Order: sequence, then C-alpha cells, then structure tokens
Amino acid sequence: MRIEINTERLLARIEALGRIGALPGGGCKRLALSAEDAAGRALVTGWFCDLELDVHTDVIGNCWAIRSGHKDLPPLVMGSHIDTVATGGLYDGVLGVLGGLEVIESVIDAVIETEHPLAVAFFTNEEGARFAPDMMGSGVSQGALDLEEMLAKVGIDGVSVADALDGIGARGREPVSALAPCAYLELHIEQGPVLEAEGTEIGVVTGVQGISWTEFAIAGRSAHAGTTPMALRQDAGAVAAGIAIEARAIARDFGSPQVATVGRMRFAPDIVNVVPEEAVLTVDLRHTDDAVLQAAETRLFDTAEALASDEGCTITRRSLARFEPVSFDPDLVGQIAEGAKRLGLSHRRMPSGAGHDAQMFAPNCPAAMIFVPSKDGISHNIHEYTAPHDLANGVRLLAEVALARAGVVKPEGQTA
Amino acid sequence: MRIEINTERLLARIEALGRIGALPGGGCKRLALSAEDAAGRALVTGWFCDLELDVHTDVIGNCWAIRSGHKDLPPLVMGSHIDTVATGGLYDGVLGVLGGLEVIESVIDAVIETEHPLAVAFFTNEEGARFAPDMMGSGVSQGALDLEEMLAKVGIDGVSVADALDGIGARGREPVSALAPCAYLELHIEQGPVLEAEGTEIGVVTGVQGISWTEFAIAGRSAHAGTTPMALRQDAGAVAAGIAIEARAIARDFGSPQVATVGRMRFAPDIVNVVPEEAVLTVDLRHTDDAVLQAAETRLFDTAEALASDEGCTITRRSLARFEPVSFDPDLVGQIAEGAKRLGLSHRRMPSGAGHDAQMFAPNCPAAMIFVPSKDGISHNIHEYTAPHDLANGVRLLAEVALARAGVVKPEGQTA
Repeated sequence: MRIEINTERLLARIEALGRIGALPGGGCKRLALSAEDAAGRALVTGWFCDLELDVHTDVIGNCWAIRSGHKDLPPLVMGSHIDTVATGGLYDGVLGVLGGLEVIESVIDAVIETEHPLAVAFFTNEEGARFAPDMMGSGVSQGALDLEEMLAKVGIDGVSVADALDGIGARGREPVSALAPCAYLELHIEQGPVLEAEGTEIGVVTGVQGISWTEFAIAGRSAHAGTTPMALRQDAGAVAAGIAIEARAIARDFGSPQVATVGRMRFAPDIVNVVPEEAVLTVDLRHTDDAVLQAAETRLFDTAEALASDEGCTITRRSLARFEPVSFDPDLVGQIAEGAKRLGLSHRRMPSGAGHDAQMFAPNCPAAMIFVPSKDGISHNIHEYTAPHDLANGVRLLAEVALARAGVVKPEGQTA
Repeated sequence: MRIEINTERLLARIEALGRIGALPGGGCKRLALSAEDAAGRALVTGWFCDLELDVHTDVIGNCWAIRSGHKDLPPLVMGSHIDTVATGGLYDGVLGVLGGLEVIESVIDAVIETEHPLAVAFFTNEEGARFAPDMMGSGVSQGALDLEEMLAKVGIDGVSVADALDGIGARGREPVSALAPCAYLELHIEQGPVLEAEGTEIGVVTGVQGISWTEFAIAGRSAHAGTTPMALRQDAGAVAAGIAIEARAIARDFGSPQVATVGRMRFAPDIVNVVPEEAVLTVDLRHTDDAVLQAAETRLFDTAEALASDEGCTITRRSLARFEPVSFDPDLVGQIAEGAKRLGLSHRRMPSGAGHDAQMFAPNCPAAMIFVPSKDGISHNIHEYTAPHDLANGVRLLAEVALARAGVVKPEGQTA
C-alpha cells in the first residue's frame, strides 16, 4: 500500500515549530520543559487535536496521539522529541515527530484503515541539555529509568524536573507504563556525514553504538621548562598527549565502526615555560559490539597506565558514561531495507553513533530507526540542515514501513 | 687570597628580605616596582649604606654600591635582582645580591684592598612578572633595550614602568650607561634539578640557552563524536596532540641540552562528545647552539604543517619569544672552575636554561655565573630552597673569583 505524503505541509510544520525559540542566526533553542518547549508542545498538540487524534500525556510529560485501528491492538508508534540543545537546529528530533504526524495525516487523507492503531509521540528531555540524563522521558516510559529519581533531577538552572514539569503544565495523568507499542519507528537525521559523503539516500539503522566516556586526570610535577632536563621530568601534559594519540591508534587499529574522540584537554598551571603539573582529558569510545568496546577500553586504560608510569606520573580515571550497544529488531530493520528498495531509495545499513529514544523501546518491543542525510554531517548546531527531498524520502519510507507493520485493512469486497 | 665569609649574616639578611612581601604559606611576592619592592630596595640599600659604600641609582632604578679600589678602574660587579614572581621563593635573584654584599663585607672585615673596585648591584624587573620584557633593568643598562620604550611599558595592573618608578621613588639620576664593569659575576640558584640529582656542589655556567617560544593555533571542524567516522574528521585536538608528541621526539632525537616543553594546551569547544574545532598549544624549545635550535624549530614547524594538512586542518603559528644563546667569557668561566677546584668543591660546567641579568652584560664585558643546587629543582615557587651550606659554598666561590679578578693589593713589604 503506497500513500502520497504532503511535503509542503511537512516543511511548513517544521518551519512553524522552528520559529518557537528561534535564534538570531538561525536554528533554535527549546531546552526541555522551558517556556519555549511549552510553546512547542502546545503547537504540536494542537496539530494532534486538529486531526481528532486521541491525545495522552504521562506523568513525565511524554505526549502521544493515537489514530484508532481496526482492532483493539497495541499501537504502532512513530516518535522522537521536540526539545533541542542550546544551539540546536530545526530537524533533530522534530523530523521524527512531525514525520510521524505527516504519515498519520496522509493515511487519514487516503481514507485508509489500519489493523493496529497508528500513534505519534514526543518524549520529554531527549537531549539532556538542561537535565541529565538524556533520553529521560522515553527511559522512564520504558522502565529503564526510575520516575521518582528523574523527577528529583535538578537542571543547569537549579530547577527540578518535577517543578519544571508543573511550571509549564506538562505533567500528565497517564501512568509511566501507559505507552506499550506493538513496534516503535523513529525517523531521524543522521547527524553525521556518512550518507551525504556516499550519496546514499537512506540509512537503515541496525542499532545504537555502545558508548564509553572516561576522564583521565594525570598528576606530575611542575618544573622550569629551561632548567629541567628531559630525563628528570614528570610531565603530565606529555602523558595526556600520549593518551590522545593512543585513542586515535585504537580507532585506526580496530577499524570502523570503532571511533575515539578526545574532546576535552586541560593543562595546569597552563604556562608556556612550565612543565604541566596536571592534565585532564576525556576519551569517548564507541562501538556496536560491546566485546570490542571492552577491548578498546582495556587497551586504552593499560596504555594510559603505562604512559603515566614511564613518566613518573600518577593517573586516575573515572567513567563519565557507559552504555552498552543496542541492537534493533532484525525483522523491523529488514522491513525498512525492503521498504527502501520498493521505493527505489538507495540505502545502507549503519549503526547510530548517537543515542536516541528508540533504544529505550528496543528491550520491550520491535524498534528501529530510519536516517536521512545531514548536510556536511552537522547537527547540534544552528546550521543543521537536511534538504526537503531527503526529508520527504524519509517520511515516505516511514509511511511504507508503518503501514506494512500496522497492517492495512482492505475495503470490503476487495481481494488480497 | 682566601677570606672567611659569615654564613649566619648572609642567612639573616636573606630571611630579613624574605619577610618583605612574605606569603602565608612561605615564599614571597615582591613584584617589580611594587610597594614590597620599594621596601626591599630600602632594606638592601640601607645595608649598602651601613658599609659606607658609594650608592648609585640609574634612571630605570638599577642600584649599585661600590667599595673603592686601589686604582681608578672599572668595578668588578656582582649582582642579580630582588624582585620576585607572584609566588616566588627567598633565593632567586636575592642570593646574587646578598651574596655579593657578603663578599664585600667580608673583604672589608678582612681589611683587604683590591685593585679594581668591588660593586654589588640589583637590577629592576628581572622577572618580567609585572612588566614585560624580563631582564629589563640590566637590558637597558647594557644597551640591549631602549630606555624610553621600556619606561612606556604598561604592567599587568595598567601602570607604566615610568609611573611605577616614580610611585616608589626608585628613579635615580645616573644615566643608562653609568654602570660599566670590568667583569660581571652572578651567583644564582640553579632553578633546576641537575646539581642536586648528581650530588654536585657548584654549576659553572657556560652560557644561557637560546629560547624559542611558539604558539600554534589549529582550526578544524567540530563534529559529533559518535556519528562522524574517523576518516571524515578534521580534528584540531588530534593535530595538537601530535605536535606535543613531536616536540618530545625532537628533544629525544637531538639529545641534551635540547629541551622541549608543551606548557599550554586548550581545546574548543571542550566538550566530551564533540571533535575539537580549535586547539591552541605552545612549544618552548631551548638549546645552547643557535644552529641546533633553528634545526629544532624547522623540524617542529614542518611536522606541525604536515600533521595539520593530513587532518584537513589549517594551522597558524606565532613567535611568542626568540632569544639567541649567550656564551659567557671563557676565561672567566675557567676562573670559576679553577676557583671551585681550589676550594675543593665538586663542580660541573652547564648552560643556564633560564634567562639572567648576566646575559645582558656578556656582550660588553667578561660575564659569567655560578649556580648552587635547588632542592628538588624547584623555583618560582614558595617551596624554593637551597641549603645553607650550598649558599655558603656559592658565596665563598664568588669571593674567590671576585678577588682573583679584581686583584688583591698586597700590604707593603709583603712579597708576591
């Protein structure tokens, strides 16, 4: 069953939502549970109501809208988030929500009935930019995070999640476990450069990479850069540089999809002619296979210890984050690939390097994601951009898979 | 001619001067031309006057005190500085001044007449901690720096050198070129760990290392740590780490006395899961041979360009400082070594890794330096320490060389 989607309607909604919290140079700022988020929620919920969908909000502010199916079955849920980082773009999260809404409206326009209900959802605080951890709403909904614990979390502005929810009237009545999909589909921008670089239209997302964040703190001894022979130094900065180089070497030796990033690096006392006494750096390692990720960690930690020891420095490390990889449902992933093929869209299987709400659903129901290209691979940036035809391709594929999965009820008298 | 020095008198003066600008945890802060510097100048000048020396101050505040010689000859000058860095110790600079004073007082006590006058001097703003450049007073005195230009320099507190001089009444009447020694001797703590590590009592300083300070700024592209494959990154931080490693490799490959230090390192945006868009680091290279120092610079600059190019980053560099090496007078250096031998002090020839007032005199008259051990190699630090016996060894050697160089007038009737 093929339906037509209305690309102009989709673009108009993306632009309208983008005007809420718009930043001077482009992009927008709608931090979770802020006044801008409240306005965004009102706009999107209004569109849900325009279509006479059945709108629900749960106790942590997750909101979903259901179009009834032919039978009393669990809904096929399409969703993502509408909160942004402080300098966010117009597409991250928004595409999955407004794309889902476009699918439902197109299905309504086409007067099609589905076996399973179709639903579209947005989840509270996916970004984690105001309140840590991220993926909070979907995590609470799917039992990965504890409701009371999350309500007590305090944001960067000193306000708790509970107070922020009440402050904008976003706390609903539905219990935590109210949303129980038959399957979960999330359309999202890639946020990376792979699809664009290859000229591929669709990313069929096979899972989410495991993430390991480690902070290393190295303690050496400050010394005069001119008067201290190399052999007598305990240079914390040299150890830090060596760890950064080793992180790169691990990514090179392990090969794709292993990635390694040193995002933070600081020296103290940070003076031109003083051998650094302290150095702090972070290493972000990601891989789709947890065994490989563990091997990368082991090699990194061992090398870091050896480098510090050789330099006469002490080193401590602490884990800032550790998530195991998530594998999406093979059947649903296969359906996305087949759908892309039927629609004549070039596609490749790929892991997601970033976390998404979909991974919270994966343990409880078949879940999977569709990626569309990000211009220059840029995201979490006001210059984030995906071309209209790529947005439309993603929504058409979302519709194709959603209808196949939800099951189309054939009009009476029609043969299979 | 051997004279006895009074170690207790020397220590008492070091302690007394150390109480001016004393810091709570030890050490002191007497920034150049500050109120504390003024008090320090008054104390030391008072000691000069107690000995009925002929005290002079020039237009940039350099102060020297002369004990007349047998003949109207240029003085043998012993000197250093009494200003400190913000968290300085009790010995850096002070030892050279109060050691010189101790030599003169011991010579007076021994009723010895010298052919050349003996003089002790302290020079304005050697540290450069309040006003850049450092070695300002000696540089102006010896024609390396322009008086008017230096008077116009503005310090970290917004006050000019000229106003600071007048503010504490330190501007004297002697012209810039008034101090013209027959030779210049500077006793100083090593400020490095070599003598202590070797168990050597005296460093016979052969010259001052050339210094090259370069700041590199690397511009790449910020990107998501999870979604950006390694091959598509333009990681400014990785280039910076590579340059730091190369600086180390240069020191290793060139061998002693080549040293290389990366003292400063900063990434932007400095976020765990973002590939750095910008990185800034400094490299401090030093060598006693300018040709070798130039070769080190060339290798560093070429490698930095290549690393940046390989990563798709742009790189710019700017010189923060560049001083050619200074060689001290071989005869005077030889006299110091011979004097140490006569006194039974273990000694080694070594370059100075730090800059000192002596290097400003080197182009105009025989100049050289004597080093004594620094505990743990620490200096520019409140824990800076040199043991009393090491201080005394240095002053005894200073007296030995000063008397030999100035020439002792033999009492009438005594045979040579």
